[in-house]
Amino acid sequence: MSYFLLDEFKNSTPYQPGEMPNDRDYLKLNANESSYPPSPKVLDAMTVAEVNSVTHYCDPHYVSLRKAIGSIYDLSYKNIFVGNGADEVLSFAMMSFFRRGMKVCFPDITYDFYRTYAVTYGLDYKQFPLKDDYSIDVNDYINTDRDVILANPNNPTGQALSVSDIEKIVSANPYRMVLIDEAYVDYGNESCVPLISRYSNLIIVQTFSKSRNMPGARIGFAIASSDIIKDMERVKFSFNPFNLSTLAIAGGTAAALDEEYMSLCVGKIKYTREWFEDELEKLGFNVYRTETNFVFFQPKGISAADLTAQLKANGILVRYYDEKRLDTFVRITIGTEAEMERVLVTIRKIIGVSNAA
Amino acid sequence: MSYFLLDEFKNSTPYQPGEMPNDRDYLKLNANESSYPPSPKVLDAMTVAEVNSVTHYCDPHYVSLRKAIGSIYDLSYKNIFVGNGADEVLSFAMMSFFRRGMKVCFPDITYDFYRTYAVTYGLDYKQFPLKDDYSIDVNDYINTDRDVILANPNNPTGQALSVSDIEKIVSANPYRMVLIDEAYVDYGNESCVPLISRYSNLIIVQTFSKSRNMPGARIGFAIASSDIIKDMERVKFSFNPFNLSTLAIAGGTAAALDEEYMSLCVGKIKYTREWFEDELEKLGFNVYRTETNFVFFQPKGISAADLTAQLKANGILVRYYDEKRLDTFVRITIGTEAEMERVLVTIRKIIGVSNAA
Repeated sequence: MSYFLLDEFKNSTPYQPGEMPNDRDYLKLNANESSYPPSPKVLDAMTVAEVNSVTHYCDPHYVSLRKAIGSIYDLSYKNIFVGNGADEVLSFAMMSFFRRGMKVCFPDITYDFYRTYAVTYGLDYKQFPLKDDYSIDVNDYINTDRDVILANPNNPTGQALSVSDIEKIVSANPYRMVLIDEAYVDYGNESCVPLISRYSNLIIVQTFSKSRNMPGARIGFAIASSDIIKDMERVKFSFNPFNLSTLAIAGGTAAALDEEYMSLCVGKIKYTREWFEDELEKLGFNVYRTETNFVFFQPKGISAADLTAQLKANGILVRYYDEKRLDTFVRITIGTEAEMERVLVTIRKIIGVSNAA
Repeated sequence: MSYFLLDEFKNSTPYQPGEMPNDRDYLKLNANESSYPPSPKVLDAMTVAEVNSVTHYCDPHYVSLRKAIGSIYDLSYKNIFVGNGADEVLSFAMMSFFRRGMKVCFPDITYDFYRTYAVTYGLDYKQFPLKDDYSIDVNDYINTDRDVILANPNNPTGQALSVSDIEKIVSANPYRMVLIDEAYVDYGNESCVPLISRYSNLIIVQTFSKSRNMPGARIGFAIASSDIIKDMERVKFSFNPFNLSTLAIAGGTAAALDEEYMSLCVGKIKYTREWFEDELEKLGFNVYRTETNFVFFQPKGISAADLTAQLKANGILVRYYDEKRLDTFVRITIGTEAEMERVLVTIRKIIGVSNAA
């Protein structure tokens, strides 16, 4: 640590991404990435002319990309803010609306980045425990005066609240900000986007990293009232005006407009997920059905830690959390059917169950 | 403005980028972009496989890109921090080391983003006036206990301080941070990078947006002691861990390694700049010789505002600053020789000087 680092950062606990070992080739199912390529239209967009256009700054208002995203929900681009992945969008939202010392809340088990941000930037945060069935207790968030951050569906549990439950939280107090992270929304549950026309204390964050198969492109977006979006733009223009590259904009715009391809990939993943969850249940595993591109379960006859380690020894990376309430679970990203067949065969081998049909 | 925007942001003045009108085709020489394409190796790097690899997150430590940048200066990647353009790198540096209320200083005439950041994030900033010849008075920065931010060469004046002058500032007080923005350094003056092995209160910021012709790719970097870099990484990992796209990394790595191409483009721009400055002097214009990819001058027989407006009417965008001490100047980016010939012919026509040889 240098002499100059501000005291408030000295005890921060930076976000820990899923491991990326490179001692051998792994089937990487630990970070909810995609086994399907991006839309072919993304490749079409990367023409020689487009690559060469990096010689100029792009429009820092990103109107073309914001219009393309708006068209998905029949919204004006004025309701859309774009950033370098959902994390940056979340950070700009929190930076704009949550001051050091302000009270926020989120579940004890959720996407760890919220806590990372809260600790680092000095928010007064409270974590409400998930219920025994690992679902969110809506009443916790209705009956608090704290600003709310919720992943819906939640991660790593994969469970979702209904739009009417979210509406209860949002409408309980219009002077309280509610941030809903819908990173996984396209895989099953209903989006809260229609609520933004009625509530000005709601920000919804989505991403191209999951259903659009493009985590490496770093494109996330927020949907909210035009006033909220204007505020976030104001903060962005004082931190990094030109936050997205011309290549991300070109690729992102092409991907946003190709809803057919997104639906196709999402359909395959949902089908594979349901089949894979069925197969895990046949092994006696305790499966928490998700509405995402991953499965979440407690294995039987082997600890979660052992199963994770043995899958890694077999060249398959999955996510294990060495922490209270989570250390009996494994989270596995849904890849292609062939990849998940390989995972199943390997799990059966590890736990000593015959792979014969 | 929404009910929720934090008070401290309500009076911020977001950075104003150069205008980007699209009512017609313009020769855009107002934002110090590049008329030369990026290295052909950048195009080579954008293979189908590379574009398709957006399906996965990149290594958020960006070791490959940092190593490539380090190799330019024979430094370890541990001395390199990468971000989404120099603005993000500057913001992460200021966020890591400058708290609300802390004292910083920079010139009255310089890259406006420093003031934007200082106002928005509540730094106690002081602007030392440039001398009458628009150069920086080194003593101002030696004799203050404030942290220092300097663009070297300065923008829009284009003048540079020597490494020994910068060393005087840095060495005057080791408990004071000095941030040197070397965005334009490759066009002439000597870099301060060698100083980082001796001073741990120095951060140098550079960019791929100027000499590497890639403003649209959004790649900037900081060079500093490994402790300073570790601190900045810590803050980045709590704000946006995966800040660069896989495409920017691939393109940036290819560009960093192609120093020959960079030298070729820089050589052409310096040659064209010197010739263009000579030609402006022949028109009686008062030229402040720069060490950058732009020229900075006071026209004669026409006001700077009028010249800017008439160039725009002729399809050429240049930069005019409607503010005290700057409103008699025009800044023009150096494009290709043919483009600058067109600018000269147009200027001669506007001021009524014959274009005959």
